[in-house]
Formats: sequence, C-alpha cells, structure tokens
Amino acid sequence: MNDLKQKIADLHTTLQSRKPLIHNITNYVTVNDCANIQLAIGASPVMADYLPDALDITSISSALVINMGTLNAGTVESMIACGKQANTVDIPVIFDPVGAGASRYRNDAARRILDEVQIAAIRGNLSEISFIAGWSSSTKGVDVSESDAGNDSTVIAQTVSQKYDCTVGITGAVDVIAYHERIVYIHNGDPLMSRITGTGCMASALIGAYAGVTKDYFLAACAGICTMGIAGDIAYERAGATGTGSFHSAIIDAVSTLGDTIILERAKCNEA
Amino acid sequence: MNDLKQKIADLHTTLQSRKPLIHNITNYVTVNDCANIQLAIGASPVMADYLPDALDITSISSALVINMGTLNAGTVESMIACGKQANTVDIPVIFDPVGAGASRYRNDAARRILDEVQIAAIRGNLSEISFIAGWSSSTKGVDVSESDAGNDSTVIAQTVSQKYDCTVGITGAVDVIAYHERIVYIHNGDPLMSRITGTGCMASALIGAYAGVTKDYFLAACAGICTMGIAGDIAYERAGATGTGSFHSAIIDAVSTLGDTIILERAKCNEA
Amino acid sequence: MNDLKQKIADLHTTLQSRKPLIHNITNYVTVNDCANIQLAIGASPVMADYLPDALDITSISSALVINMGTLNAGTVESMIACGKQANTVDIPVIFDPVGAGASRYRNDAARRILDEVQIAAIRGNLSEISFIAGWSSSTKGVDVSESDAGNDSTVIAQTVSQKYDCTVGITGAVDVIAYHERIVYIHNGDPLMSRITGTGCMASALIGAYAGVTKDYFLAACAGICTMGIAGDIAYERAGATGTGSFHSAIIDAVSTLGDTIILERAKCNEA
Repeated sequence: MNDLKQKIADLHTTLQSRKPLIHNITNYVTVNDCANIQLAIGASPVMADYLPDALDITSISSALVINMGTLNAGTVESMIACGKQANTVDIPVIFDPVGAGASRYRNDAARRILDEVQIAAIRGNLSEISFIAGWSSSTKGVDVSESDAGNDSTVIAQTVSQKYDCTVGITGAVDVIAYHERIVYIHNGDPLMSRITGTGCMASALIGAYAGVTKDYFLAACAGICTMGIAGDIAYERAGATGTGSFHSAIIDAVSTLGDTIILERAKCNEA
Repeated sequence: MNDLKQKIADLHTTLQSRKPLIHNITNYVTVNDCANIQLAIGASPVMADYLPDALDITSISSALVINMGTLNAGTVESMIACGKQANTVDIPVIFDPVGAGASRYRNDAARRILDEVQIAAIRGNLSEISFIAGWSSSTKGVDVSESDAGNDSTVIAQTVSQKYDCTVGITGAVDVIAYHERIVYIHNGDPLMSRITGTGCMASALIGAYAGVTKDYFLAACAGICTMGIAGDIAYERAGATGTGSFHSAIIDAVSTLGDTIILERAKCNEA
Repeated sequence: MNDLKQKIADLHTTLQSRKPLIHNITNYVTVNDCANIQLAIGASPVMADYLPDALDITSISSALVINMGTLNAGTVESMIACGKQANTVDIPVIFDPVGAGASRYRNDAARRILDEVQIAAIRGNLSEISFIAGWSSSTKGVDVSESDAGNDSTVIAQTVSQKYDCTVGITGAVDVIAYHERIVYIHNGDPLMSRITGTGCMASALIGAYAGVTKDYFLAACAGICTMGIAGDIAYERAGATGTGSFHSAIIDAVSTLGDTIILERAKCNEA
C-alpha cells in the first residue's frame, strides 16, 4: 500500500470541498491556463499583480503563487511585498523561477525573492533549480540547457531545500521533490508536455491550490506535480496523436475530471 | 410569441452584417477569449489599453468595453479617459467591474469609473453588483461570496440601474437584467461555466458587440447575456462530460455557429 | 518540380533538428498562441518585454520577433533597443506592425522601429503594409479596411521591400511575399482564419522560428506563411464546421504534426 498516493487522493478531496482562494502573481503568457487549471482542480484563482490591488488580495487568500515568467520592476516589487504579506498572515508562498539563469535581471529577481520571502515550495526545471543551487548553469531560455542535463536532480533539490528551508520540486522525465532529507520521485507525465507552453506554470499553480488547504507543503508539492503528471498521461492517451492543441485542452479536461479513484490508480510516486 | 427572442435574433443578424469595431480595455487573463468570442459573434475586436494609443481607437470604434479584471494606474486612467471620449463621440460604454469589493483599489477604481463616465450597461456577478449597490458585500476574490448569496438580485440590479441610469446585468443561476422599471430574466447557461475563467468577461464582451449596432442598450445586454447562456447550454451538451478544456473551446464553437434559428429555439428569456 | 516547396520542406527539417531559441516581444492578446505555435513547429520561444530582462534574452536568441499588437512606452523602447541589439549580434528581426494606421501612436512606433532597426522581414495585412508604403490607408482597427481592399498587394509589398531593404509578406486571400524583384504567391489558408484572433501573429511567429535557422529570410518568410496556410487548410478540413474554438485548436494540432511529406503535398506556392 502506497501511503503517499492515499494522502494525495485525500488532499484532492479536501481541496474540492474547500475551494481555496489562490492569489497568483504570474506571467501574461500562461495566465489563462493557470487560472483554468486551478478552477479545474477545484480552487478559486485571482490574478492580481499591481501592488495597491495585490496586497489586499493576498490578505484574503489561502496561498500565493509567484511566477516570474514575464517580469518588470512593478511585478517584482509586488512579488516581494505580497510574499512578505503572505509570510505575515501565514499563508504559503509557491515560487516558480521561470528562466532563472537566462538573464541577469531574472537572476537578481530570483535572489531577492528568495532572500526576502520565506518560500514554502519552489518548482522549476533542472536548469532553473541548478542556477539557484549555485551550481554551474547556463540556461538557454526557459528549457533545460544541455550543459545542465547531467546534473543530479536529487542533490540539487536537496541543496536548495536546505539553503532556503523549503520544499523543492524539479520536474522533468522523472520529477524529484525534496524537503531536507525527504525525497519523493514521480514517474507520471509525458514528454509531449514540453511541446506546449505552461505545463511547468500549471504544475506550480496546482501546488498553490493544494497548499491552500494543508500546512504540509511537501505533500502539496507532491500532489500538484503528481496530478499534473497524471493529467499529462491521460491527455497523451486521449489526444497525443492529434496534436499539441488538442493535447493542451485535454490536460485541462483531465484535471477537471480527476477523482480519488483515478489518482489512486494512476499515481506513480514513491518516497525514497 | 416571445417578442424579446425575436428582437435578439434580429439584433444578431444586424451584428453579423455590420461587423462593428469594438474597443476593449480589458485584463490579460481572459483577453484572448474576449477577442475570440467577439470575432465568433461577428464583431471586430481591438484591444488597446495604453492611453496615447487607446484614445484614437475609441474614436474609430462602435462601442467600448471596460473590464477591470487586472488593473493598474495606467489602465484605470485609460478606462476613464476613453470612457469620457466614448461619451463625447456617443458610443456606448460597457463596464465589467471584476472583483469589485475584493480590494480597496478595485473599489476606488469602480467608483471613479461610475462617477466620471456615463455607462450604458454594467454586467457582474451578485457580489460585484451588490458592492456597487452599496449593500453589504464581502467579495471573496472574483466569485460570489456566500454572504451575498441571499441578496435579491432584482432589487440590487434595479438599485444600481437607478443610481447610475444604466442597464444592469447580474449573471448567475438565473440572470437578471434591469433598466429602471424594466426587468428581464434569462434561464440559459450551465453551472459548469463557473469552472472556466472568463465566462463573465465573455458575456460582457458580447454585450459590447451587440451594443455596437443598436442604441437600445437594454436589448444589447439581454442579447449578450442570452447568447452567452445559449452557448453554455450547447457547449455543455457537446463537451460537458469531457471536461472544462473541451467545454471552453465548445463555448467559442457555439457562438461562432449561432444563427437566428438556434436563438429562437433555445433562448429562455422573459420580461417581467 | 517546385523548388520552393522542397526548400521549405528542407528548412522545416532543419528547424526541427536545431530547436532555435526565439525571442518574442509581443502583445498580451495572442502571446499564448505565439508561444504554442513556435513550440509546435519545433522552436523554443521566450517572451520577454521588459528592457533590463529582454536585452539579455535577445543576446542568447537566434531570432527576434517584434509584434506591436498591444503597445506602451516601455515595450516600444524594448522593441527598438532589442532590435538594435539583434542587429549588433546579427540575428534577424521579424516585425509585425499590428494595427499600423489605426492610431497615431502605432504609426509613430512603426516608423521609429523601421527607421532605427534593420528588419529582416515584415508581415502584415494589406492595410498595415499599405500604411507603411505611404499609400492612402485608413485602417479600421486591425482588419483590412474596405478602402485598402483595391490596393495592389504586389506593388505595395515591393515598395516597402525597397524602402526598407527587407522581405515583406502581405497575408490575405492570396499571400504575397516580396524581396526587391523576387515575388512569391501562396494560395494556402482559409477565410475562417480571420474569424480567430492571432493567425497573423502566429504567421509572424513562424517566420521568426524559420529565420532562426537560415540567413535566407525571404525563404523563412515564405516558409512561415506557407506552413501557417497549410495549417489553416488542414484545420478547416478537420474542424471548420465545428466552430472557431475547435478550428483554433486544430491549427496548433496541424503545425505540431507537420512533416516534410505534408508540406510537399499541400504547399501551393510559386515564384513569379
């Protein structure tokens, strides 16, 4: 009996009964998908990035998701100020460091966010998290660069977890989630997910949704990444051969029709 | 014989023959859906929110839709300046006060817009319109809060209509549209519409499209909300069981293939 | 034997093997579609418009796409500065002058961009390119205005090509691509493409993807516009009758499943 699977299924049930309000400060590329996947899983998303508006939204929310896919001076200030506010009112902050390593501005923003805000969970690809770990990293845009491909995800995830005392998820062919000594591997998901924009952002959005209904942020990260992977598996079966437009839509379909039974049947997660 | 149905069907025919240019100052979450649904119904959308650009666009348009889903200082100024310009050149302004009640910034923005611009039609959910009515309201994000659920939509819609001398639409399980003493109820639409982002925004976008071809803004509001509801009904039949990704796409499909016959067959609207 | 078809098919193969990083400074209406279509064709998109971030992204990219669908002072400065940087590091700049002619601000922005940046290829509709040619033009929003419909696309494309020493593509019922004396006509595509937002932006995004793997920007423009047209043809066959939501998704599907054989079978392009 896999205890983690059961915990994820139970958390999914809780999420659907509680409909937590999730505040997202995110990019304009995948924002519609992030809102729709949070609605699909059963949460209630609000997107607000202008500080005078956003601070009030953080205060009434159950979790804050910060995604730096498209940054500017205003949104960085909002991320930090709302992140601090989230810390004050004791709601979790999920951080998606999109493109960390790709530009000095993004690098500085990621460092400032991590220095000034206590993060509950970070989710990124191997290049992004490698950059944060301080390892050699030469991100090519927002995908994993070849020079990072050989890095050991487990070691990197643990390094960042210890450095910032938070859960760290690295998504890829096999997903790794670390919180200090605890490690979970997830084998769900399909390579086609990298052929549409926003699957990483959507995984982070799902972590935010789960983190809105539990104080166990390690579990929330496992649940978010695992349900995203299950959705990728189902979408690939239904629409993979049709093309990436249909696959995109099928991912949202899968999340919106997910139930405990499907999670228990399909989750491929195990704690190391 | 339901006269309103026939009027909506006729207005739909007019819209398709005239292809009005509709200026939208809207949010970055659902902007793509708003553009696509206006194209689907037969209008020609332009999205422009930067004042030096936007003022010229208002001047060549047939209607202006203001949606405050994601605000900042610049877009609020554009909404007000373009709203005044629309008043000057005598084109209708449709206002969607997304999240009114959820933050002081949104509240102030909504008040300023309503004080400084003559609005033709407002469309929102019960919490948003309750806030504008000055009734007790505690909006939870952008959905209807439980404490507002007991409010009487008809009374609230009429209150706001009299306060601002405009048509007011409250969408929900039953939609209410009021203009002073006139009241229309619409029974189209499906609860699944609340599981995707932007169905409210899209309804407002459709009102804008219809308002671009008639001076009867009460009729335009009925037409926009009714066709959105019909699209929801059709989309639910075709794709409701598949999931919210397919349902989302099916709503646009339904609007793009709508004709007079379908409107006359499916519209469930009646004047009180 | 049509040599151009073969060259397009070969360029498509090259694109898929090289996965070029494409920097896009684009609008918030169709940005998700632009990212997804570049991923679908095999490129790796990055969207970044804030100058301190964007300059570094240009420097690591293989092409820059500038799309002025939604402008503000900051994005115009980024377009010009990144455009100059692209010229310096010798990567091609693709320019989509969305709505040129519709507002003085857009007109000034288009002129500044063309005066200050050496463009590799411009793609627009007849109204937009007519405006740039200095011919009489009265753009109505972002679609072709009736008063421009009689203009001779070939003459206008050639005029702009000579004026700015770049490839010029005018998309419409028949697409025209000009580079000085060279002219290609493309007969792919379906009128339904004008019923969804972003098909023009997506064509420009595809030109950018192809331009990231060849120095022959005339060929890249032909390839981008031709593959977009083929995708429109396939999507119309599969989903045209269902509606524009499904058609939208089917365009991405078609691009993501495109291969050399399909290009050779379906391309309707010929050099004059």
